[in-house]
Parts: sequence; C-alpha cells; structure tokens
Amino acid sequence: MKLTRTSIFLAATAMPMIRAVKPNNYVFFLPDGYGPASETFARDYANYVDESTIKLPVDNLAIGYVRTKSLDSLVTDSAAAATAYACGIKTNNRAIGVDGDNIPCGTVLEAAKLDGYLTGLVVTSRITHASPAGFAAHVADRDMESEIAEQIVGYSHPLGRVVDVMMGGGKCFFLPKSNTDSCRDDDLDLWSIAEDVYHWTMTSSRAAFDSASDSDAVDIPFAFIPASGHMAYEVDRDPQLEPSLTDMAITALDILHRKAKEQDTGFFLFIEASRIDHGGHAHDPIAHLYDILEYNRAMLAVKRWVDDNDDTVLLSAADHECGGLTLGVPDYAWYPSVLTHADHSAQYYAAIYKNMRSFNYSAAMMESTLVDRVFGGYGIYNVTLAEIAGLAITNTPAVFLGELLSSRAGINWSTLGHTAVDVTLFGHGLHTEKLVGNHDNTDVCHFMADQLGLDLGKATRRLQSDESFVASIRSAANAKKFLRPFQHEHEDDIIQAHHKH
Amino acid sequence: MKLTRTSIFLAATAMPMIRAVKPNNYVFFLPDGYGPASETFARDYANYVDESTIKLPVDNLAIGYVRTKSLDSLVTDSAAAATAYACGIKTNNRAIGVDGDNIPCGTVLEAAKLDGYLTGLVVTSRITHASPAGFAAHVADRDMESEIAEQIVGYSHPLGRVVDVMMGGGKCFFLPKSNTDSCRDDDLDLWSIAEDVYHWTMTSSRAAFDSASDSDAVDIPFAFIPASGHMAYEVDRDPQLEPSLTDMAITALDILHRKAKEQDTGFFLFIEASRIDHGGHAHDPIAHLYDILEYNRAMLAVKRWVDDNDDTVLLSAADHECGGLTLGVPDYAWYPSVLTHADHSAQYYAAIYKNMRSFNYSAAMMESTLVDRVFGGYGIYNVTLAEIAGLAITNTPAVFLGELLSSRAGINWSTLGHTAVDVTLFGHGLHTEKLVGNHDNTDVCHFMADQLGLDLGKATRRLQSDESFVASIRSAANAKKFLRPFQHEHEDDIIQAHHKH
Repeated sequence: MKLTRTSIFLAATAMPMIRAVKPNNYVFFLPDGYGPASETFARDYANYVDESTIKLPVDNLAIGYVRTKSLDSLVTDSAAAATAYACGIKTNNRAIGVDGDNIPCGTVLEAAKLDGYLTGLVVTSRITHASPAGFAAHVADRDMESEIAEQIVGYSHPLGRVVDVMMGGGKCFFLPKSNTDSCRDDDLDLWSIAEDVYHWTMTSSRAAFDSASDSDAVDIPFAFIPASGHMAYEVDRDPQLEPSLTDMAITALDILHRKAKEQDTGFFLFIEASRIDHGGHAHDPIAHLYDILEYNRAMLAVKRWVDDNDDTVLLSAADHECGGLTLGVPDYAWYPSVLTHADHSAQYYAAIYKNMRSFNYSAAMMESTLVDRVFGGYGIYNVTLAEIAGLAITNTPAVFLGELLSSRAGINWSTLGHTAVDVTLFGHGLHTEKLVGNHDNTDVCHFMADQLGLDLGKATRRLQSDESFVASIRSAANAKKFLRPFQHEHEDDIIQAHHKH
Repeated sequence: MKLTRTSIFLAATAMPMIRAVKPNNYVFFLPDGYGPASETFARDYANYVDESTIKLPVDNLAIGYVRTKSLDSLVTDSAAAATAYACGIKTNNRAIGVDGDNIPCGTVLEAAKLDGYLTGLVVTSRITHASPAGFAAHVADRDMESEIAEQIVGYSHPLGRVVDVMMGGGKCFFLPKSNTDSCRDDDLDLWSIAEDVYHWTMTSSRAAFDSASDSDAVDIPFAFIPASGHMAYEVDRDPQLEPSLTDMAITALDILHRKAKEQDTGFFLFIEASRIDHGGHAHDPIAHLYDILEYNRAMLAVKRWVDDNDDTVLLSAADHECGGLTLGVPDYAWYPSVLTHADHSAQYYAAIYKNMRSFNYSAAMMESTLVDRVFGGYGIYNVTLAEIAGLAITNTPAVFLGELLSSRAGINWSTLGHTAVDVTLFGHGLHTEKLVGNHDNTDVCHFMADQLGLDLGKATRRLQSDESFVASIRSAANAKKFLRPFQHEHEDDIIQAHHKH
C-alpha cells in the first residue's frame, strides 16, 4: 500500500463528521478554465522543478467530476457555468443569473444572505466578470458589466446589498465616464455611491488590504479593488500593488469568520482563480501555469484554514476546460524543462515587442533585441529567422509567442475557446464524501444549498417579485444587441478592461 | 438535491461492507486509450441519441483519477502502463513485466495464481498485445509477441501456466510459420502444444464460445481466440464470428466463478476494451465511440454481476489517453449528430476505397462511388472536390476520413500517439471507497494485491530465481534491437496482425 498521502487526506476529511452535523460556512472555489490536462501539466512541471513534489495540493482533494454543458451549447462559457453553480439551473451561454427565458434565478449567495449569512466574492479578474457576477447579479449578457457593478454594490439589486466582502479587479466599472480610468458609458460615480449610500469601505490600496488582514477593525461591507481591469497574472504580479490570491482568500475568510461569529451566523464565500482561463485562451503556458500553481497554493491555504475551522466546507470545481490543452504532442514529447526560463507571461513580452516598434531601431538592433529580450526573455532560445519574421506579421504576438513556447514543450492547444470535457471536483470537510462521483454542475449548487439549509426558491421568488427588474432584463435581452455569435476573448481584452474613453 | 443516481450508486457500493470483510475475486477492467474527453464524447453522443441517457454507466462508478507517467516518459505507452498496474512498479515504455533494468517483476495475476486463485485475460486486441501481456508475461519489448504467446500458454513461463481462461485475438502468434495465417518466425505450433502439453481447450469457434457460456461443462484452461489479429472494432463486428466484449466478460466471469467455487478459491480477471485506443490512434471517432459504448455496456454488465456476487470487486482505469481528443473545436462547435450516420469504422470505408482502385472505374463512376459509398457511407455528406482529391493522395485514407468526419463534428485530435492527462478511476464493490482521489497507476496494483492478500514480492523472487529466464530477457534488451525511437501505430497495424509471410 503506497497510499499514505491519500490516507492522510481521508482521515482529515472524516474527522469533522464526529464533531459537527451541519456546516456553518461554505467556500466554493472556482478555478476558471482548469481542465484535467491542466492539472497534469502543472503537476509534471512542479515535479520537474522539485522531485519531492509528487502531487499537487488539489490532487489530494479530488473527489469527482463535473459535467459542464449549458442550455444552448455542449461547450459552456463562464456565464452559464457560474449560473449553474449559483442558481442550480441550466441557462444559455452569456447569461448571468437568469434562466433560458431571461427570468432571474436566486443564487446560493443570495439565499445565504436572505437567511442571515455573510457573503463574499474574491477573484483575480474584474469583480464584474462572468463568474462572480453569476453569484450576485442578474443580467441578460455578461458584457453588461456596468449594470453588474451596480447590482453587486447593492445600488440596483432587487434584494439590496447581498455582498459583504469583495476583492478583485474592475475598478473602471465603478468610475464615472469623466474619469480617464472609467469603462462606463454614464456619469454614475458608483465608487462614491457605494461608500456614501451603501457604507462600503472601498479601497484600491495594498496597504489598506494589509491592514484589513492584520486588524480586527475591518468594517463590512469591505471592497478591495486594486486594479482598473483584471488583476495581474500571478507570474506578472507586482506584490507592492497586488496581494496574491492566497492572501486575498485567507484575508476574506478571516474577516467573514470574525464578523460571522460576532453576528452568530455563518458565511458563503465564492473564490475564483479567474485567470487560469485567460492563459488558456491566450495559449500562454506560462500565464496558465503560474495561475494554476497559485490556485493550488490558495487551495492548500484554504484547506488548512478549514482544518482549523471544521464548521467550514471547501468545494472546488472549474467551470470548463480552456484551450483544448493536450500534453505530449507530437510523439510523446512533453518537456516541462522548457517552461523554467520565463519570468513573465507572453503578454508581457509581447508588450515589450509592441513598444520596440515605436523606437528607431536598426534591423540588426531590432533582431538582437527580439532574440534577447522578447524570445529569450520568454525562454525561446533557439528561435529561427522564420519565427522572428512571423512575429512581425501576426496580429496576436502574445498568442504567437505562447504557441512557439508551447510547441517546444510538447503542449498543444486545439482552440482559442473552451472545450466540453468534464472538470475535476475537489472537496474538503463535512459531508463532501457524499459528492464522490460524477455530477452535473447544477447538482453542486443544490448540494451546497442543501448543506447550508438554504431555500433557493425563496430567493428566486423575491427576485421575480420585482416586476420592473424582471422587465428590464427581458427588455435588454429582447433588444438582441447581445445575441451575437461566439466571440473569442481578444488577447488585449484578456489583460485589460474595455477602456472606452 | 438532484443526486438520485449517485445516491443509489453509493448505497449499492456501501452495502457489501456489511456482509463481507475481504473480497474473494478481483476484476481489473482496462479501457485502453480512454481519456476524460472520450467519456464526455460518448456521453454527449448517447444523450443526443437518447435524451433519457444523462450519464454513461461508468459515470456512476467514478471514484478518482490515475496518474500515468512511465519511468522514461511523461507520456506512457500501454506496455509500461500495464506493467505498472500488474507489478506496481514504473518501467520504460515498451517494456512488458520487467523493470527499468529488464529484471522481471511479479504481477498481481501471477501472485494470485501462486496463492491458488484462478486467473483470466479477456481482451479485444491480440491476446499477445501489450496490456494483457503485462499481466502474464515478461519480455524486453512489446513487439516480442511470439515470446509472449509462449509464456501465456505456459510453454516458457518460469512459473508454468499462470492463466486459466483467455479470450481475445492474435491466433497468428500461436501458429507455425508454415501456416499462411502465422505471424511467427519459427516452426513452433503453439496452438497444438497448448492443447497437448498444457491441456488448454483452444477454440476459435463462436459456437464453442456459446457452448462455454451456456454449459457447466467447460474445462479450464480455456482459450477462445476467434481472430488471427485483433478482434474487430465493435462497429465492424460480425456477431456470427465474434461475441461482444460484454459476452466474453460475463462468460469468463461465470466460468471462473464456477471453477473457483469448485476449488474453494477466488479469481483475478483482467478485462480490456483494447481498441478504444486504436480508434484514437486512427483519429476515427466512429471506431472510438462504438468501442467506448461497448466498454460501458460491459462495465454495466460486470457491475451487475458484482451486485449478484458481492465477494467480487470491480476496478477500472485506462492506461492513458489517446489521440489528444478535444471537443468543441473551433468556437464551441460540437455536433454529435454528425456521428449518427456511419455503420462502420473509417478503416472499413478506407478498405472499400482501396478495393475500388483495382477496378476499372471511369472518373465519373469513381467519384460518384466515392461520394456515395465511401464518404457517404461514413456520414460525410457534404464532401468537397478538394476532399475527394485529398483521399487520392493520402497514404493513410482511414485517418484522412476520420479527420474529415471529426472536424465536421467539432472533434480535434492533436496527436497520433498518447497524451499525459490523468485518466479516470472507476470502482464498485468492497472497499473501493478507499480509492477515492488521485493515485499513481502503481498504487492501484498495490491496492488490489493488498485487498486479495497477495505477496507480489514472492512472485518476483520466484521469477528472478530462474537465472536463464532473467538472462534471456536482458540479452534481448542488450541486443538493443528494440531500442528504436517512438513509432506510431500504423493504421494497417491497428486492424490486423503483422503478417510476415
């Protein structure tokens, strides 16, 4: 028997059963775009770098699989998947917290709030992006991020404010269009309204975040939004500006736990490793890898936090695979060593290249700088003249670099979008052993609601009783302005918000 | 809670714990080349054909994941993977039942035999192919199928005959080279030797198989080898000649169970859905799909058999993924409906095409026949002139057809070989809940040996004590004739044996 690590895990999960019968707190941790091959990818890399690492932290928490298809597609997007996990229903791709007829559905976060639980959203994308939005907003299309921001702070949510703690990027959707950093089309100063009307502590400062994690004196609702668009990829992150996902997750847990104890209640926390997905869309093995490793660090930290607080349960599953990643292409070639050299994402090196074009470099200077700083910086040492020429003519230099490095590592990407494969379900804590096996993504929602004793139907009825809210969603949907064909996430869209001004 | 099916499964697996403390019989069922995306693929197809089919039979048995890397490669082949499942050790790709130094290792099947259990091998490939060979033979390279055949019948195995029941293809390796159907380089008439010296009942006849399944009067050792090379893909199978894998699996279970009861012992049975892998190598979604569906039928039948015989345990996991299959390429396109028209594999239609070339068709007749019988037969209705021309110039018409149909369905194949992704672990019966989670493939072997109370070390020592046997393996390895670079399985190699004469 060589099952020591797993045996330890099983013992640890079984223990709380003796002490508690019902969890007080639930954490749902979504690694966006994390498919089965991504897990093997990161594990083999970790094992290459450190032979003693045989398994990833999440490997020890695997309990099952999740089926992901949406109402209108066998391949889901993050919006329909978030709605499935949040509301327990299938909906169309691009829909946020509404069913196939654009009628709003109560989410597990909202149902928790209605029952007196505290709630939180912690992500590395814009806080208005599809996954967190699916838990606390209801709009016809995921791109309605201004409306999502309004609902998340409580400004236009039928239930009022349903979120107590939020952390992530997307500040631009809270600023009026007069601000140069705004992504809004209107003059709404949602940042100030959130502070003044809804009593949010709104901060972008790393120092304020650190105070929040060190002190008992945090007020809720508390929002930490350090980035205008998405927060940085982990491999590009400047720790002076942005904490890690692990830091944010534990800080949110500590705040919610402390406040919940004070109020004699529990909490529901949604955490997302948002940008594993973006690395997949961009075919960037470096961005994908480091965000996966940070997801694993955060999962390990949350798992240990749960070990210390056994009235809390951790479930985790991706929304879908991203990029069609396969390892060993062609001919069983799979070389994690190729990935050890890059210090930044392909997007970072592509930005250097784009910047170079504005300089008055000689051809020789251009070539040597490209070889050294761009290709070499990213770990592509044996670059050919044809590849250098290829960079000059591509419209997507980051994807170009990512695919060059991928092919050298034996990694293949089959699509710029998502794929249909089942994703892995991870669990730790009370009763998660009941979820062993293969489940629909909607089942995961009903399990969580059941465990917390929540009534999703009550939340749904409350939302639907607001007739003008329901009418406004259907009106937006009927305008059909969002009913467009599938769009790839453009590589620039992946790293920054849609600056419209 | 919408977990009815899973709850039923959990209840069913939990029940035997009350009645038994140790399994008497173990079934290890290997779906060769069955990766996570293959499961989603077949499920979505099944659901398209029959809306009431929400899950595949194996979906209800999923308990974990298996890591698959071999000693010399992050992407394993079937030989190293079979050795990992059989011996519980990592070895090099292409090695059968030997470690990285070409020293033989005792297998769970051999250890079971030494302890008085009955044993069986049931496959749809040649019975001498890598996966079954890994459980009952020890050679330096998987291509030594003549030597494997000799060991499997007991002729040159250091432990004597270790197999009691075998079913599968590969008759050509049992026939002397004077026989036109032989794949051997020597005059050994292994078929007759097996009958005369080792008392095997050797049969190729479907009628004899049917008698075996209907009657108590089967003698062991019993071999049913109906095909010269591999048995047919399920979609191409002629039931007059070959039974289904399900029929063979249940017949083998019934024979072993009856004989084991008579001898007051238990049994170890290895079953393989061998050719899911071949459909993947050939990029043929039809061959891949129908062999997956037959694997599911067989797993359901074995699961029900276990329900009726609760001293028996079923474990199942693939050796590796094959083909780098992804679903939804490009742009979330995934259309199972495209796959509903073909009645046969791509290999079957490619054979029609190859045959047509020997006729004296006019160009117009050739084109209309290709459109109707080859492309149309396989379900490619909207064939272009460029595609018709492409068929004429490809060296691999079956792969060409397979990729055309795949692309119309939204299926992408990234490699003609295997990939590194973890595979799913399925289990049913006593104590399988202990295997929930992520495991190395070698762990699965040690778990089975532990559950049956077997001593793998004793089997290893017995093998290694035969010095001339050990020397012969090392001698073959040192000749280095097998130490060649990676080879794709050629499409013709996939459907028939290497006829050398």
